[in-house]
Amino acid sequence: MMRNQKFMPAIKHLLVISIAINAGLVLKLLHDNNGHEWATNGMNEVRVAKDVFHGVQNLSRATDQYINLDHGDPTMYEVYWKQMGDRTTLVLSGWQSISYFSDTKNHCWFLEPSFANAVTRLHNLVGNAQTRSYHIVVGTGSTQLFQAALYALCPSNAPEPMSIVSAAPFYSSYPLIIDCLKSGLYKWKGDASKFNKGEPYIELVTSPNNPDGSIRQAVVNGSGGILVHDLAYYWPQYTPISFQADHDIMLFTVSKSTGHAGIRIGWALVKDKEVAKKMTKFIEISSIGVSKDSQLRAAKILDVIADTYEHTEKFDKVKPFFHYGNNEMARRWKQLRSAVNKGQTFSLPDFPVEKCNFSGQRFGTQPAFAWLKCEKAVNDCESFLRKHKILTRSGTQFGSSKRYVRISLISHKEEYDEFIQRLSLLSSMDTP
Amino acid sequence: MMRNQKFMPAIKHLLVISIAINAGLVLKLLHDNNGHEWATNGMNEVRVAKDVFHGVQNLSRATDQYINLDHGDPTMYEVYWKQMGDRTTLVLSGWQSISYFSDTKNHCWFLEPSFANAVTRLHNLVGNAQTRSYHIVVGTGSTQLFQAALYALCPSNAPEPMSIVSAAPFYSSYPLIIDCLKSGLYKWKGDASKFNKGEPYIELVTSPNNPDGSIRQAVVNGSGGILVHDLAYYWPQYTPISFQADHDIMLFTVSKSTGHAGIRIGWALVKDKEVAKKMTKFIEISSIGVSKDSQLRAAKILDVIADTYEHTEKFDKVKPFFHYGNNEMARRWKQLRSAVNKGQTFSLPDFPVEKCNFSGQRFGTQPAFAWLKCEKAVNDCESFLRKHKILTRSGTQFGSSKRYVRISLISHKEEYDEFIQRLSLLSSMDTP
Repeated sequence: MMRNQKFMPAIKHLLVISIAINAGLVLKLLHDNNGHEWATNGMNEVRVAKDVFHGVQNLSRATDQYINLDHGDPTMYEVYWKQMGDRTTLVLSGWQSISYFSDTKNHCWFLEPSFANAVTRLHNLVGNAQTRSYHIVVGTGSTQLFQAALYALCPSNAPEPMSIVSAAPFYSSYPLIIDCLKSGLYKWKGDASKFNKGEPYIELVTSPNNPDGSIRQAVVNGSGGILVHDLAYYWPQYTPISFQADHDIMLFTVSKSTGHAGIRIGWALVKDKEVAKKMTKFIEISSIGVSKDSQLRAAKILDVIADTYEHTEKFDKVKPFFHYGNNEMARRWKQLRSAVNKGQTFSLPDFPVEKCNFSGQRFGTQPAFAWLKCEKAVNDCESFLRKHKILTRSGTQFGSSKRYVRISLISHKEEYDEFIQRLSLLSSMDTP
Repeated sequence: MMRNQKFMPAIKHLLVISIAINAGLVLKLLHDNNGHEWATNGMNEVRVAKDVFHGVQNLSRATDQYINLDHGDPTMYEVYWKQMGDRTTLVLSGWQSISYFSDTKNHCWFLEPSFANAVTRLHNLVGNAQTRSYHIVVGTGSTQLFQAALYALCPSNAPEPMSIVSAAPFYSSYPLIIDCLKSGLYKWKGDASKFNKGEPYIELVTSPNNPDGSIRQAVVNGSGGILVHDLAYYWPQYTPISFQADHDIMLFTVSKSTGHAGIRIGWALVKDKEVAKKMTKFIEISSIGVSKDSQLRAAKILDVIADTYEHTEKFDKVKPFFHYGNNEMARRWKQLRSAVNKGQTFSLPDFPVEKCNFSGQRFGTQPAFAWLKCEKAVNDCESFLRKHKILTRSGTQFGSSKRYVRISLISHKEEYDEFIQRLSLLSSMDTP
């Protein structure tokens, strides 16, 4: 894992180092994803390797390996947290996490007070969401909270399941999560822009949007609509913080804000107390609360992020977190646009430049995913890239066309650099 | 929290120390459960306090407070894990738990290898379940795994939801979990002993049973039946290990085996690979995996338990874990039966004595819950005990009569002792 740290100070130089020198690193990385073929529909992970790699530093072998950018695994952040050394280390004694209960005075009785405090502190620092008079509900990732919100908002005695919609392209997991148990409470009804019924509905508004990074507002505008805002990416490394969000239900996750996907912690800011209580009830029924250990770790990490701004004296050699993330995303988007602009095979969306109230800087959204379009004769972009050993997620899974793919931009640096090299080559060849 | 350790060496003496001396401890403990009134249907937690406690060491105040034994919060174990000192301490660095993935070579890609190893090691030590040729699936508590099993076992294209049954008295959360989303895949059909349809069904077999501690086998014996075994309490502190279980799907949880409920980790041993894969899929869809931090902690704790038997030299002053738990449960059941035998107001089930293959000792099941029956004129046992400030869960919630209540026996020692004192008094008064 030290390979990341080793290359940190030489980011610019790395770009011009030949592919041959990188081959060993790339091979090591791809080896980690190796061993057998497997595929999962929900996240649509696909990792393919025909034979087990034996460590030979051979370029042709390296480019034979698949690069998996199908999922949004935020391994980009590992190098930052390694720099932090012991500052984010958490020590847990064997007698901790015995009781189910974290705070019997809170309606969300499994919410660790230190996590709630860290969430409030970070939102107040960044200014991306109101917390005053909001109720915090913690969940096993924002995925569980999303289901909790549906449970809380859909009446249990309605004659028909509630319609759930989101404007295409929408997050590919929404239909899977919503319909997996064939619930009588709610039903996925697809693209919000095509939904115009007079009946009650819930519209999911993801902003910046997964997969395409667009800044979004509700599109249905029906009278019986309830909105759930997924703000997983509304953090200053990805997009300018142009206003303090104050929606009824706002979902966040550490996976994309701090990069700790394996912690499985998300939180909801909920305006209505009764909705927060019903969301809590869902999490109680479905998992009897949320890991205390993970909440304590998340609290520590969120607090250290705030410290990188409020106690800068402690962090003389480490950049403040969001500034680091913003620079890294800017660098990656620059590489990506440069590769795409080498020819006419691909295109990318443009994003308007805005002022970020948090950093004071002006920049355009630089999303965690690229929503890449294949132009000209390439009809099926996912298959085309797969043929060239780049695994991405097809636009069809997001309610869009197969001309599009979603590509994760937040993987390990070595993997990302190898992807850029392959894309540049494809782009400049003007295939097919 | 030090109060538990302080009193550890004097367990026998404590039993004869007057209630007045204990009052301070009880008050401190009850204070922790204080603050406001709240009730949750899923776990049916009820904690009531009319006014906030201010620390007065006053006996009448202490007996005025409610004792909450409604839920199975395993705080009894805290004192044991405190004795262990640093042996179970886990240190987590800030750069851990970044990736979603734990083991891309395993179909359960979010399963930490060290946790899988510790599970296998402990089952092999205790002899309570086969692990050879089983697939391990980890979940956010066994609650999530139970839902994963239903998802895996119910066909998605059946015309009618699958019937789910369990013999009464059954775990009170089963109906809540199964029916909360009005799934079209499955439906709660209640008491297995009243179910005799020819259609496909799933029977949940909990053994030892929650709430009544009985050792169980399937009761329906229909041709189209699938069994799911919940073996949360099949550990040698609660019951003799009389055979090595080798059912198709077996669910376990650290909450009841080690006492770490707040970790929210359970595991399933699954015979059929395709079922294990579908269970994995459910957990992927519903929470994109399971906390890595909690898995690492659980691995450490399970390993230390095995060490208390396999490396006894390291633990000269600490009893091996299951022996400690077995002694503690025996002590509590002795106290309980002694209190109940003071009169004719209450009765308890009896359990046959069997040999435990793990410890070599002969004893009867000493369940984590008492299934108490109110005799004579007391028709509603839960209300009767509530009147006397003991909160329990009514038999009606387990598909049984209101003459019964389920009482947790695994709470903090001070709380338990106070409960025994109150019950003794009620019992000897022969109320009403």
